[in-house]
Amino acid sequence: MALKLYGVPFSTCTSRVLGALYEKGLDFELVPVNLSVGEHKQPEFLAKNPFGVIPVLEDEDVNFFESRAVNHYVAHKYKDQGTDLIRHKNIKEAGLVGVWVEVESQTFNPAISPIIYQLYVKPLHGETPDHSVVEAAVEKLAKVLDVYEARLATSKYLAGDFFSLADLNHFPYTNYLMKTPHASVVNSRPHVKAWWEAISSRPALKKVADGMILSV
Amino acid sequence: MALKLYGVPFSTCTSRVLGALYEKGLDFELVPVNLSVGEHKQPEFLAKNPFGVIPVLEDEDVNFFESRAVNHYVAHKYKDQGTDLIRHKNIKEAGLVGVWVEVESQTFNPAISPIIYQLYVKPLHGETPDHSVVEAAVEKLAKVLDVYEARLATSKYLAGDFFSLADLNHFPYTNYLMKTPHASVVNSRPHVKAWWEAISSRPALKKVADGMILSV
Ligand SMILES: N[C@@H](CCC(=O)N[C@@H](CS)C(=O)NCC(=O)O)C(=O)O
Ligand SMILES: N[C@@H](CCC(=O)N[C@@H](CS)C(=O)NCC(=O)O)C(=O)O
Repeated sequence: MALKLYGVPFSTCTSRVLGALYEKGLDFELVPVNLSVGEHKQPEFLAKNPFGVIPVLEDEDVNFFESRAVNHYVAHKYKDQGTDLIRHKNIKEAGLVGVWVEVESQTFNPAISPIIYQLYVKPLHGETPDHSVVEAAVEKLAKVLDVYEARLATSKYLAGDFFSLADLNHFPYTNYLMKTPHASVVNSRPHVKAWWEAISSRPALKKVADGMILSV
Repeated sequence: MALKLYGVPFSTCTSRVLGALYEKGLDFELVPVNLSVGEHKQPEFLAKNPFGVIPVLEDEDVNFFESRAVNHYVAHKYKDQGTDLIRHKNIKEAGLVGVWVEVESQTFNPAISPIIYQLYVKPLHGETPDHSVVEAAVEKLAKVLDVYEARLATSKYLAGDFFSLADLNHFPYTNYLMKTPHASVVNSRPHVKAWWEAISSRPALKKVADGMILSV
């Protein structure tokens, strides 16, 4: 089998890539990495990704890391198979997919990730969430989602009237968020809520959600 | 003229895009945005970028924002003109360009940007740099550059033996850094130093540097 994904499905970065692989209907092997024993800091893994973080996608002789870069690679290489995630036939649409992929990376992710870290990751390590950090992050996320609400009033998905990598890349963190009381930040904005419902009902992403088991 | 870039050359994000436009040898109009009077928070600008930050590239009827997304759009649309920034003829090389573009965005940028903020931006506003923040960021950057040093011992540029968007996107922040005493974090690593010399001697990027006037 050509493609090997090193990672674990509960990690948001791994799940982001699983989403792209499922949307493309690709065959791949998921190779688990044992984070709790630091397998990702061992020479064998560092040879695949010198930064020592998951996921890594191995395609024969080349290792790709950084989940958003891996997703673009997969979407580009298999552009004619499964869901078209990058609008490869239209340069302007492809450019807008790129814009909203970057908005997720630069603006949405820094707002949402501390919420998930505090509410999911800290309790796993026996630590107590800092609710003042959560409140500040929720407030920041609310402002980002105000912009999304206006955008999604004019198009069904972020980059236009088509599902793309821009939407998909939001899936893992939002999937965890929706299981917390802060789901209201999505549900109170009708267009954001409809967008989330459209994304999360996709068979490929339901399959990703099934593997994201971390208890809050 | 088709392309209009809204921004100011001293802003690192604007300069990132200028680098791509110059490498491509494209004609464009630079439209200055007066940040000090908050022009970027006015309805006219917000209609171009609802997040109210520069730069924005207007290509006829479509506005593209997020500097890294704009650069990919430019590199993709004008792939056969000027420097090939995305290795569009080789899917694996293109994928590696994507990986190192993301490394800049996710790992290098968060380490270097606080240094520039403290040493350049705060004094502009009459504030005093917090040197403990600078020290911590320099230490973080040093660790990132250790990985770059090893990588650049095996290839001349980050994504391979070719200059690409991955290298170019590092230009603006590094250009400011090299004018501070912390330039040593680059100069003490021979492969990183050689890489920086190769990048910063490119005519297109020298032209970008000429416009980046902010005194420390
Ligand atoms: N920007 C990277 C982040 C990778 C990352 O932080 N991965 C986490 C799991 S989601 C990890 O490996 N954590 C273990 C560690 O940092 O030791 C990506 O999107 O792939
Ligand atoms: N991730 C964005 C960042 C844009 C950004 O923060 N731009 C700065 C200038 S470098 C800005 O507009 N600052 C003014 C403000 O935030 O009010 C990009 O790369 O384009």
